[in-house]
This record gives sequence, structure tokens and C-alpha cells, in this order.
Amino acid sequence: MPSSGDEHLWALIMAGGAGTRFWPLSRRRRPKQLLRLVDAGTLLAATVERVAPIIPPERTLVVTVADVAGAVRQELPAVPEGNILVEPEGRDTAPCIAWAVWRLAARHPDAAMVVLPSDHVVKDGEALRAALLVAVEWARRSAGLVALAIRPTRPETGFGYLELCDPAAEAAGLPVVRVRRFVEKPDRATADGYLRSGNFRWNGGIFAWTCAALMAAVRAHLPALAERLDALMADAGSRGEEAALADHYPGLPRVSIDFGVMEKATNVWAVPVEFAWSDLGSWPSLGEVRGAHDGVVAIGDTVAVDSPGAVLVSDGPLIATIGARDLVVVATSDVVLVVPRDRAQEVKVLVERLRALGRDELL
Amino acid sequence: MPSSGDEHLWALIMAGGAGTRFWPLSRRRRPKQLLRLVDAGTLLAATVERVAPIIPPERTLVVTVADVAGAVRQELPAVPEGNILVEPEGRDTAPCIAWAVWRLAARHPDAAMVVLPSDHVVKDGEALRAALLVAVEWARRSAGLVALAIRPTRPETGFGYLELCDPAAEAAGLPVVRVRRFVEKPDRATADGYLRSGNFRWNGGIFAWTCAALMAAVRAHLPALAERLDALMADAGSRGEEAALADHYPGLPRVSIDFGVMEKATNVWAVPVEFAWSDLGSWPSLGEVRGAHDGVVAIGDTVAVDSPGAVLVSDGPLIATIGARDLVVVATSDVVLVVPRDRAQEVKVLVERLRALGRDELL
Repeated sequence: MPSSGDEHLWALIMAGGAGTRFWPLSRRRRPKQLLRLVDAGTLLAATVERVAPIIPPERTLVVTVADVAGAVRQELPAVPEGNILVEPEGRDTAPCIAWAVWRLAARHPDAAMVVLPSDHVVKDGEALRAALLVAVEWARRSAGLVALAIRPTRPETGFGYLELCDPAAEAAGLPVVRVRRFVEKPDRATADGYLRSGNFRWNGGIFAWTCAALMAAVRAHLPALAERLDALMADAGSRGEEAALADHYPGLPRVSIDFGVMEKATNVWAVPVEFAWSDLGSWPSLGEVRGAHDGVVAIGDTVAVDSPGAVLVSDGPLIATIGARDLVVVATSDVVLVVPRDRAQEVKVLVERLRALGRDELL
Repeated sequence: MPSSGDEHLWALIMAGGAGTRFWPLSRRRRPKQLLRLVDAGTLLAATVERVAPIIPPERTLVVTVADVAGAVRQELPAVPEGNILVEPEGRDTAPCIAWAVWRLAARHPDAAMVVLPSDHVVKDGEALRAALLVAVEWARRSAGLVALAIRPTRPETGFGYLELCDPAAEAAGLPVVRVRRFVEKPDRATADGYLRSGNFRWNGGIFAWTCAALMAAVRAHLPALAERLDALMADAGSRGEEAALADHYPGLPRVSIDFGVMEKATNVWAVPVEFAWSDLGSWPSLGEVRGAHDGVVAIGDTVAVDSPGAVLVSDGPLIATIGARDLVVVATSDVVLVVPRDRAQEVKVLVERLRALGRDELL
């Protein structure tokens, strides 16, 4: 098994996201991964710290976007400046990952890596690290693409799924099974079926592969992306990375690693994992990782009377409620959000409304 | 009819209230009468301005309490400093009114007055003034106690009522009828009956009387109060008002003018009025005086999506809602309140909870 002394093993943390689902706490310049939703630290810092026992910050790459690069650097003092890669603009996960891999492979052609989102929650870091080491081991032995496969706990329609092959297809003594297919976000009935079947797992966007394997897969399934990255790297070598990036990056195809590569590749494997995982997809999901007191999920200064199911989050003002059953209330110094928890996904409607109203200072 | 040149006619504005029903916008040092809930000005200033065409500020007395006296003075620059009477502590309306009357009568024994709460809303000032002049005229002619009698629009259980005698008992050409009795806040079934009968009217706490008549009524029905006020006045004359007040005021019986005097007196009359009136008893009552847009009552910076029946009040932050049906949301710089509109009266529960928690800075 690789150890923390494995100098060919790198981590790639994807920290370019700029979603609106945690608005108004999250803003353009303070996206979800920079929020302190679970512990004293940000989700991003927690992610880096979680892998640090097996992959130190010196071999941790963080890809982010210009708007938040300063905050990311400040948040990760142990990560070398040169390891923080700034996309000129977000082009979804395939260009982001592939660019980092192309770049890493130029200096470390034998590198392998784990890839993790920066805004998810895994409380059992030990279990995560063990699974990552298995995934890396198998990625090297098989030259395949390996995904952690998370046991579903509900018929979630917001995630992609992995269909696993028969567990009898286990790999040479390692707890790894072949993936039959990646599937996109299902409708509710399909998700119910997935949950019953037992053969489907959530795709949490946590992967392991060698640089060589990922590059081969991109060349096979996203040849246009591969060509443009080749050109970018050549250009970067001759006239500097920044100029090359500014020219080439906006032309990269906008596509996810799931759709662009994982759904099409054939040598895809899974490490089924049992640990609790949350993508913190919306305000109510805070309950999964924070727990509730009297049925209330509370962060910051709150007083709740008879408010079961409420999710109350303040980064300043006192939130005082009576009868706020199943309501999400989020208070910052300049915005107060109130929405029923079953409509929390609609926060983006408000963000769009405010954008249309020119209230950019609140976005 | 009295005119604005009637130098024996005074106004007494009661501005000592410190309710919690508009918390968190209202605070100990900024009670409801000092809020700008309806117009650009405060309810208190609007009250003084509403009577000014018939009674100028120089003959307007304002009774308030120490906590808010500074704010009251600032709010009413046209009212002479000496007309603002500061109770050492609130002892309900009978001592408040009687003290002001005793004090006024010492210098102006022939004075008559209208008495008004400082935190109610009457949009039709012209109609109010006409009714007040009728009430004063009849108070002088009859030497009785005269109340404006407001037509009920719903079976309200939060107000006292006046039962009117037969309109045939009208007074000498003036639209005044004798009051059969004052009744306390009824239960719902009784209030339904009052609404149907047509003979019951809301007691809005707006009165007219001569100093002599009110003093006689207090001597008759609250003799202990009268004796203590006599002593206070004598003491004030000999060693100064402030010292006398501090000694005597806390010993005055705590009783309302309705219970202590009006319910017991026999020479009570009413001027039935038809104008719209609101006591602004709770957050939802703002809809009565502000109107709604898309079903939403909004004050301050708000964006409401699909939130019919919502009452949104901000004195700073943007309040953004989705699906906040029938909710009250109030946002200040340090507190956010969320409560269903049909439980808005329970805000006091939160205030009590915060007091118990020692959060005095928020009260």
C-alpha cells in the first residue's frame, strides 16, 4: 500500500465551485467551500487536512478560479503557492482535472492522484484515507479509472450513480469491483429502484488514477480537449503560463468528467465505501452533519420556540423564531433569507431575481 | 364650536407605552410610538400633527416615561419642553392622565382636553378633528366624560367596548349618545354578539373632558389616587416637582382609566365615529394601514417570491423570501424575527425568553 512517503502520489482538490445553494451565506467571492458550515474551519481546509496524513500539502494541488484564488491561498497556508492553480474561468470538471493532470504529468509523468471535491463532508477521515489508498493501489495496478462508490441512504435524484458489476468480480484481493456503468441523475422512480437494487452507489466525485491513465482516457473520449491542452502546454512552455491560459482556457469544451470521460470509459472500477458522506447540497442537508437540538439545526446566535424542522443559520444577528416549523432562515449582516426547507433548492430563483434587479453587491 | 383659538382647550398625548408587540423593531428605548411604521414620521409625531390644526403644540401635553423622554423631546421640537411630562415609572393610564390633569388644572382650572394614545393610526385627520371638537363641546356642556366610539369591523377580542344607549338619546343636536356601560375585552363569542348587535363600539382610548369633570370622577371612583395627587401637588409646590414625583409617583395605584373611572362613572357619553382607525396591535395589523402588494405587506428592502400573506419589515438587511406564506419576518441589524402571522401576538414569549437569558441588549 502507498504510504505518506509515496512521492508519486498527489491530491487534486477541486475548489472552483461557485454555487448559489448556500446563498446568502455563500457569495461570489466566498463560495461554499470557503464557508465554516461544519467545523471551525472551512470545508476546503478540512478537505486538505483530511488527506494530509497520506498526502502532504506539498503534493496537494488545488484548482480554483480567479474570483476566490486570494481567499483560497489565505485559507491554505501550508499548500505551496505554486500548487494553487487558477482557472481563468470555470469550464466544468473535465477541463479542470485534465489541465491539472497535463500540468502535473509534464514534471511528474509517473504520478498518481486522488481527486476530491472541496465542499463535501466526510467525518470519518480514517475510513476515507483507507479507501483512497485502496483506490490508488488499484488505479496503479489496473491502469484504470477508480471511483469511490458511496452507499445510498435515500432515493436521491440530485446525484449521479454507479452501477456495480457482480461483487464476484472483485479484484485480486482488494475491495474493488468493476463498474458496469455511470448513470446520470435519475428521476424519483428510477432512484427508488436504484436504492432497492443494492447494486447502485452514489458517485461522490472522488476518484483515483494515474496521470497516464487519465490522459489516455481524455485522448480517447475528449480528443478536442486533449489537443487543446497539448497546445496550451506547448504555448505555456514558450511564452509563459498566464498568457497561454488566458488564450486557450476559454476555448476548452465545457463538460463534466462524469459525462465526458467516466460514462464512456470501459476500464472503470469502484471502491465501495460505507462511511457517512454528505455533499451538503442545500441548507436542510446541514442537519445530516450538524445534528439537531429540539428538532432545530442551529448555527450561530439563535433562539427557537416551537420550531421543529427549522434550519437557522446566522453569521451575526440573533435569529428568533416562534412556530417556524420546517423553515430555513439564514441571516447575514446584509441579507435575511426565509424559505421552507422543501423549497430550499429554489434559492437560485432569488439570486437570479436580485441579479436582474442589479443588486450585485448581494450576490 | 371651539376653534384653534380656543385657549382653554388642551391635548394630552399618552406616550409612555413600552409594549413588545413590535419587537424587535421596538425596543425598551424605542417603543412603538417612536417607530416609523406608517409614514415618514413616527406615530407619536403624526398624532401631535393630527390634532395641531385645532390644538397647537403649545397647548399639547405629552406624558412619557424616563427611558424614552429624550427621544420624545427630539421627536417633537414644536412642543415646549415644559409640556413633556415624564413619569418616574409607568403606572397605567389612570395615574398618567390624572397627574396631567391635576397639574394642568393648577394653572388652568377652566381647561378642557382631548386625550389620545400616541401609537394609533387615523388616516382621516379631518374626521378625527371634527369628532374631537364635538366631544369637547359636549364635555363642556354636559360636564361629563366623552369617548370616541369606533365602529367595529371584526369581532376583536383585544379591545374594550362601549355599549351605547338608544340613539334617540342623542344630545341636543350634537351627534353624541349616552354610554350604557364600558365593557372589558370580551371572549370570541361575546365579541361576535357585539358585532351583530350594532350597539357596541370599540373603545379606542380617545376621550374629551374638562379638568373639573375628570377630577371629580377620579375623586369619586379612585379617591386614593386623588388624595395622593393632592399631596403630590402640594409637595411639588413647596419643594420642587422632581423630588415630589420621585417620592409620590411609585405609590400611585396602578389602574387603567377604563377600569378605574370610565366603567364606574355614570355621566359617560360617546361620539360615534365612522373613520378608519387602527391600534396597530401586532405585525399583521400593518396590512390595515399600509396595504399589500401581491399579497405582501413590505416595509424596507424586500424581495418576496410566492409569499402571499407575508409581512416583511426591515430597517436594514434585504429580506428575501420564497414560499413565506403568511409569515412575519422582521429584520434589524441585530435581530431577525420569524413567526407565522397568526402567532404574532406570541412575540412576547421570545422577549421573555431573551430576558431570562440575560440578552438585555436586544430588548
